[in-house]
Amino acid sequence: MIKKIEEQFLQYVKKMMSYNEAIQLMYWDLRTGAPKKGVEQRSEVIGVLSQEVFKMSTSEEMAAFIAELSPKNAYEQLSEITRYTLDECKKEYERNKKIPADEYKEYVVLQSKAESVWEEAKATADFAMFRPYLEKLVEFNKRFIEYWGYEGNPYNTLLDLYEPGMTVDVLDEVFRKLREHIVPLVQAVVASPNKPETSFLFHPFPKEKQRAFSLELLRELGYDFAKGRLDETVHPFAIGLNPNDVRITTRYDERDFRTAIFGTIHECGHALYEQHISEALIGTPLCTGTSMGIHESQSLFYENFIARHYAYWKRNYPRLQRYAPDQFSGVPLDAFYRAINEAKPSLIRIEADELTYPLHIIIRYEIEKGLFNGTVEVKDLPEIWNGKYEEYLGIRPDNDAVGVLQDVHWSGGSFGYFPSYALGYMYAAQFKHAMLKDLPHFDELLEKGELSPIREWLTERVHRFGKTKKPLEILRDATGEGLNADYLIRYLEEKYKAIYQV
Amino acid sequence: MIKKIEEQFLQYVKKMMSYNEAIQLMYWDLRTGAPKKGVEQRSEVIGVLSQEVFKMSTSEEMAAFIAELSPKNAYEQLSEITRYTLDECKKEYERNKKIPADEYKEYVVLQSKAESVWEEAKATADFAMFRPYLEKLVEFNKRFIEYWGYEGNPYNTLLDLYEPGMTVDVLDEVFRKLREHIVPLVQAVVASPNKPETSFLFHPFPKEKQRAFSLELLRELGYDFAKGRLDETVHPFAIGLNPNDVRITTRYDERDFRTAIFGTIHECGHALYEQHISEALIGTPLCTGTSMGIHESQSLFYENFIARHYAYWKRNYPRLQRYAPDQFSGVPLDAFYRAINEAKPSLIRIEADELTYPLHIIIRYEIEKGLFNGTVEVKDLPEIWNGKYEEYLGIRPDNDAVGVLQDVHWSGGSFGYFPSYALGYMYAAQFKHAMLKDLPHFDELLEKGELSPIREWLTERVHRFGKTKKPLEILRDATGEGLNADYLIRYLEEKYKAIYQV
Repeated sequence: MIKKIEEQFLQYVKKMMSYNEAIQLMYWDLRTGAPKKGVEQRSEVIGVLSQEVFKMSTSEEMAAFIAELSPKNAYEQLSEITRYTLDECKKEYERNKKIPADEYKEYVVLQSKAESVWEEAKATADFAMFRPYLEKLVEFNKRFIEYWGYEGNPYNTLLDLYEPGMTVDVLDEVFRKLREHIVPLVQAVVASPNKPETSFLFHPFPKEKQRAFSLELLRELGYDFAKGRLDETVHPFAIGLNPNDVRITTRYDERDFRTAIFGTIHECGHALYEQHISEALIGTPLCTGTSMGIHESQSLFYENFIARHYAYWKRNYPRLQRYAPDQFSGVPLDAFYRAINEAKPSLIRIEADELTYPLHIIIRYEIEKGLFNGTVEVKDLPEIWNGKYEEYLGIRPDNDAVGVLQDVHWSGGSFGYFPSYALGYMYAAQFKHAMLKDLPHFDELLEKGELSPIREWLTERVHRFGKTKKPLEILRDATGEGLNADYLIRYLEEKYKAIYQV
Repeated sequence: MIKKIEEQFLQYVKKMMSYNEAIQLMYWDLRTGAPKKGVEQRSEVIGVLSQEVFKMSTSEEMAAFIAELSPKNAYEQLSEITRYTLDECKKEYERNKKIPADEYKEYVVLQSKAESVWEEAKATADFAMFRPYLEKLVEFNKRFIEYWGYEGNPYNTLLDLYEPGMTVDVLDEVFRKLREHIVPLVQAVVASPNKPETSFLFHPFPKEKQRAFSLELLRELGYDFAKGRLDETVHPFAIGLNPNDVRITTRYDERDFRTAIFGTIHECGHALYEQHISEALIGTPLCTGTSMGIHESQSLFYENFIARHYAYWKRNYPRLQRYAPDQFSGVPLDAFYRAINEAKPSLIRIEADELTYPLHIIIRYEIEKGLFNGTVEVKDLPEIWNGKYEEYLGIRPDNDAVGVLQDVHWSGGSFGYFPSYALGYMYAAQFKHAMLKDLPHFDELLEKGELSPIREWLTERVHRFGKTKKPLEILRDATGEGLNADYLIRYLEEKYKAIYQV
């Protein structure tokens, strides 16, 4: 009896997941070259399918599955995958059911309006235009928190959407530590007379050659082209349709090859995660990364801990020199290494280097927390934002387009998302530290281009589980401890003190 | 009351059509570069969505819509589009409902098995291997005809699937005429001492240059790249996701530029049809070509009546010469024109020239008709096939791979499809004849590259209607008469008598 309901439940979920896969492919297509005039009708189609998935996730059928399969004696008879699937569906069901349908509809309309208003506000650096929309988005989210409930701090509920189990208590502590170490380190770097020479980075580098070099690097990193492809978009991304079809995109800047190379490797990190999720999870909501933070840990591991490492370029710099001999033949490896690791305070998060990046996130975290704890008001955001940039980074935006209006996230109502970026970074440093115990010759592996042991270590401990393990469970099982900011701090201090001789 | 049901019915249909659009995009993606290892799971997703569309088309809800909206007093209150939509849904409903579900399932399994057996049989030229599957496919279709019923001739029911309203009576007459004129014309061409020189066609021509030339031609023909894109596949095709997203693909043969150029223009003809269907039909089953034959008339109009025309190359040959000066600078336009219009009997339909092509179709028509009238048995097909090739084309296949096993159609159970190709050709010639009355300077338009009046003529009379007009209705309204083979015969006789001086 239970087995039969279980089977029906899995079929039901598989249907939802099939619709999702179709939706994801349509998104990929929209961003990689779908004809412009077809966008409107395609959005309609996406809307129809999305609505169907939403309906199914909150239907009476779903309620019946939950009611029949959740009681202990039934639950215990389910397979492990079914149990986790049921947990996910239940969480989603409750989250969606608790918001009154009318209110949610209003919110969806607001989101889409707010996004286009934000675009215009950013283009004209006009915060006042965006302010009423942002106020409403915050209000809605405050009400949602009331509906959903919270423990400890209202903002926890939002954090949990992206990083299950993460709390303000934990973040306050690690972000304080990060700030206390990174701010003075950045100041020292700024004051250092030993800055890397970088002018040679900005030579013309034809797109086709960048692409060829990227493909070579991707293959060596272990990205499986029988399960993926590389395309070109304005905003690079990785998308996992299923573990056997995980696509990445990149952007080529012909005057700065770093955009494509480091961007591609970053997305490759995301893609390796998705390519190595257990195939047994296909057709369930477990077949994706367990959280935004763990996902980001994989992309940052590849981008920073591999591709900004000296040993990696010991192997790959000669290759790069062959692709662009005019640009690099006169530049020694050491100079190249220092140049690609230049750190300096800047206003735009997505262009920030690996040293200053966490400060951008901490600023956003402090502001979001304040918004949902009643200590910050939307009207004061530009002033608070600019003040924090001045305090932590020593530079002040001279308009809101390069300040509080720069990111798309808030315009879509995504609050609680930003911390994932810094969490991912800390997770990555912590994984690296743990990995060294198993792979003490890490540097040598990079130098030899033997990247399989590294990828396999990550697959074994992170990738394969999909959503069957929570982020902090993965972290603890892989590293033997909870979140610890020390590893990232140590990495940044050692690396940047050496480069800048401070 | 009726208005409310009408609205619900249109919403219901829109959902089906949205699923179809998603399915179509997945097909396009599978053929244009989806990662190999992802194919299996993607096929699952396509299966889930297709099953849902099938269920919806035969559901109790659909039955209720049909029951409520079909009675005369209700039907009369519906909009014109709803009425046609209802007609289509009803036809589909009845067609699907009349076959017992178990039998249909068995048939679907057989189809997919038969296709892979056919592939192997073709590769090894082993008809005996394919024969039992083909026999079963014919049997199933005979039973389906019994379920569906027929008028006049059982084969009519199959013809009607692809060319609504077409009958054996009509085809017997036009195909007899075609055969009587084309067979002796082909014989005269074969015997002619004035054959075109063609060796210069087969120079190496880099893919990138072929692509650039193709893009230039497509733009001039009026293909709208804001509503489409050109990709590369093994088997070229055009696919209309909606009128604002109609994509084409082509194949580049670096040793024979004709493959890409004429292939692309052929698909462009299909695409121009789909790009110019009225947007009011989006979201209904009417938003596609009205029949296979009318669709083919558009592709063949562009491929043969435009792109194999002397005046077209008067304009475009100098362009082509600029793309491949080594290949063509020493070849005069007249020699080029004769070369691209070379006609000679060959065994493979898809490689046939425009003169011999109709004979390939007539052979298949006569065999299919015989199969469903009990005068031909599957076991005798190779002998019959080879005999007809010898009789009509003067050449005999020396194995079944280049004979009866060459086409994929029968392995998928598609009987009644082949005649569409020849019908399309006759329609195209008939359209051309009618068009000349409105656009007497047709040749001059080609020579000047002014293709809009031609495209607009076709849009006005063919494209915009989608499925709201039946094929013979379109033909009659556009040309003032029913199907008439004379125009095609006259075109071929005039053209080939001149080229071969016979």
